[in-house]
Amino acid sequence: MTDGQTTAVRVDEARLAGLIEQLGRVGAQPGGGIIRPLYSPAWRDAQDMVSTIMADAGLEVREDAVGNVFGSLSGDVAGPVVLTGSHIDTVVHGGAYDGALGVLSAIVAVQACAAASGAPRRTVDVVSLCEEEGSRFNGNYFGTRSILGMVAADEPMLLVDADGVTLAEAARSVGLDPARFGEARREDFDTFLELHIEQGRTLVDSDIEIGVVDVITGLVWVEVVVEGRTDHAGATAMTNRRDALQAGARMVAAVERVALDEGHPAVATTGVMRVYPGGANIVPGRVEFTIDARHPQSAVLDRMVTAIRGQCQAIADDRGVDVTVHLTKETPPHHLDVGLRSTLQQAADACGASWRELPSGAGHDSQTMGSRVAAAMLFVPSMDGRSHSPAEYSSPQDCARGASVLATALHAHAWAPLRTEAR
Amino acid sequence: MTDGQTTAVRVDEARLAGLIEQLGRVGAQPGGGIIRPLYSPAWRDAQDMVSTIMADAGLEVREDAVGNVFGSLSGDVAGPVVLTGSHIDTVVHGGAYDGALGVLSAIVAVQACAAASGAPRRTVDVVSLCEEEGSRFNGNYFGTRSILGMVAADEPMLLVDADGVTLAEAARSVGLDPARFGEARREDFDTFLELHIEQGRTLVDSDIEIGVVDVITGLVWVEVVVEGRTDHAGATAMTNRRDALQAGARMVAAVERVALDEGHPAVATTGVMRVYPGGANIVPGRVEFTIDARHPQSAVLDRMVTAIRGQCQAIADDRGVDVTVHLTKETPPHHLDVGLRSTLQQAADACGASWRELPSGAGHDSQTMGSRVAAAMLFVPSMDGRSHSPAEYSSPQDCARGASVLATALHAHAWAPLRTEAR
Repeated sequence: MTDGQTTAVRVDEARLAGLIEQLGRVGAQPGGGIIRPLYSPAWRDAQDMVSTIMADAGLEVREDAVGNVFGSLSGDVAGPVVLTGSHIDTVVHGGAYDGALGVLSAIVAVQACAAASGAPRRTVDVVSLCEEEGSRFNGNYFGTRSILGMVAADEPMLLVDADGVTLAEAARSVGLDPARFGEARREDFDTFLELHIEQGRTLVDSDIEIGVVDVITGLVWVEVVVEGRTDHAGATAMTNRRDALQAGARMVAAVERVALDEGHPAVATTGVMRVYPGGANIVPGRVEFTIDARHPQSAVLDRMVTAIRGQCQAIADDRGVDVTVHLTKETPPHHLDVGLRSTLQQAADACGASWRELPSGAGHDSQTMGSRVAAAMLFVPSMDGRSHSPAEYSSPQDCARGASVLATALHAHAWAPLRTEAR
Repeated sequence: MTDGQTTAVRVDEARLAGLIEQLGRVGAQPGGGIIRPLYSPAWRDAQDMVSTIMADAGLEVREDAVGNVFGSLSGDVAGPVVLTGSHIDTVVHGGAYDGALGVLSAIVAVQACAAASGAPRRTVDVVSLCEEEGSRFNGNYFGTRSILGMVAADEPMLLVDADGVTLAEAARSVGLDPARFGEARREDFDTFLELHIEQGRTLVDSDIEIGVVDVITGLVWVEVVVEGRTDHAGATAMTNRRDALQAGARMVAAVERVALDEGHPAVATTGVMRVYPGGANIVPGRVEFTIDARHPQSAVLDRMVTAIRGQCQAIADDRGVDVTVHLTKETPPHHLDVGLRSTLQQAADACGASWRELPSGAGHDSQTMGSRVAAAMLFVPSMDGRSHSPAEYSSPQDCARGASVLATALHAHAWAPLRTEAR
């Protein structure tokens, strides 16, 4: 698979491990887990620490209007910038790897390339994106969307956290000016490369070291409302009930069955369920629940939603309750750039790392970046497939191997002479 | 079935219907339903209206220390008082019949007896109990328990409503003095007769006019906690999950099956379910739900709880989650007084009303009264079996028929000469 021209570039494993540990202390909670929501003090501390690490690595640091931090290494030749990195925010009680590993790997990767070959041909910017998780404000990919000019003017005033603070107010609390958010837009780059933990067990279970993501899975969010009849739990015979929860429980079971019937990598999850009126001695009259269904093929995802819809209706009919099924979000599968995937594969080969293509079940900045520029991403193994949890872990060897593959790909893409130039 | 000695006493149907409508306006909500929680302004208004109705009916009115209102008709002969009535509080968005019908029926019944036969042999007290539903404070039967001396001294300070107001504070807001609550205790009565709507469909479905309750069903409350593992809903394969909700949904279905397997009148209900952490894109790691299981036979109820426990454990084992099942409340079945049931049956016969014995699936003041004195209750049909709902309805004919049976029973018990005296 190697083209024979890719030169392996290796990062310093101990240094990367030290940086992961250092950044993992920012926002760490006494009981375990990391909390770094957008524009919180811990988030501010983390971006400041990343700035320092970037500067120490010889990068020229700047922060944009929304709080994305860039570390730049100028190229010899004019032309589109190569962007690489990931995000710095975390979910509530998240781990030290989701997002952070991609930022730190990009820094050590660019530093290793520079050490090997000096200045790049094309300018390379490492980015520490301000927001990806949507854990404080319901507006995922805010950092990436700001760079791409995809944030509506009123969004910062409309997005509100659990305490009623708007995104705009939160930004001001860390010294940013929402009136200047529009300045974050960039049109000078054509490439985005992201390293991330897998967050699943595919690599671990197949004992493969590097995942090259071919497609970021399509996602559909559905809200289901079941309307039955509230009744007295003692006085109403079992055969005379229209119990919304008994119907809802069967529907939740059907959600799982639909995904199992399609087989891996189909997933379908009910994560939220609300039962009304919610008294121990009252037969529930109304149940609301969510469905998160994902598959990398649109046709399969459509079939899953159709099956879920049909089964919910059949259960409702059988039990004399009413059901409504509403799509609330639909993100089609995103196929990553074929050329960059090939670059990553050749880089893995050059590094002697085993690799496979695999879909990503989670959403990532790369899919949003990929809507405007060539984007690709590589995965390193996640212990037990855990993520969004303090149990999140990837070994120093796995992290360094991934960062070396990233360095090798960046080197091939931004340092090595173009093959057309070489002829 | 009649003893040939019971004299039918008839109430005024139009008057009773008018009183139901009048009292039903107190606490009525613009969108439908009645809200009269204990010690609320609407509750105060309702007890004041009941006092006026009692006085108009020729009863001597007094309110006790906890707000129970009594309307008394003095007897010729010294001896234990006969108590009859029900409660005045409602659930949130309840109807005009649950509780209120028993209070108003008792007033018109006693009035009809007095009109027919003058002063009773034994003193008869109609009672409008202050609290039964537990809808504001989690302390059902507060009125009855106060009369029986079953309220712990610190309970009024410990019971808190959803706004953090203690029962003691709420009592003060309607002019009562919690320091004097102990004075509500009475030891001068030996009988309690209660008329209530059925709240089920037994009478309606069997086209029978009067229900004589033989047993108030036994009740067990169970709290179930399922512990699985929180995971990323996109990145975690279906076969690698320990989804607490998928397990919980099967357990909820099992709760229904256990009741159906025992057959009528077994009931089992899950009315409360909480899902954690509660994100649409997070596999639930923890689910908590309640079970309310009821049966008039202790042995069957025990068997139901054992079956539910076993099925929850089997589902947990099958799905690799942990489950704990805790009993939080256990009220044994209460059999009502055989002699008073016979009096009610003879009264129904005398009135030409069809009747049947039946269990009560709901709890009532009669079961608490019955722990100290002879207690019995009769049911009138509930349209569609509905209760705890604005849809609650019993026809004026059904209400008056029930009140006439109550009057006839009271007349036989408190007005007519004892048979032993007649010989």
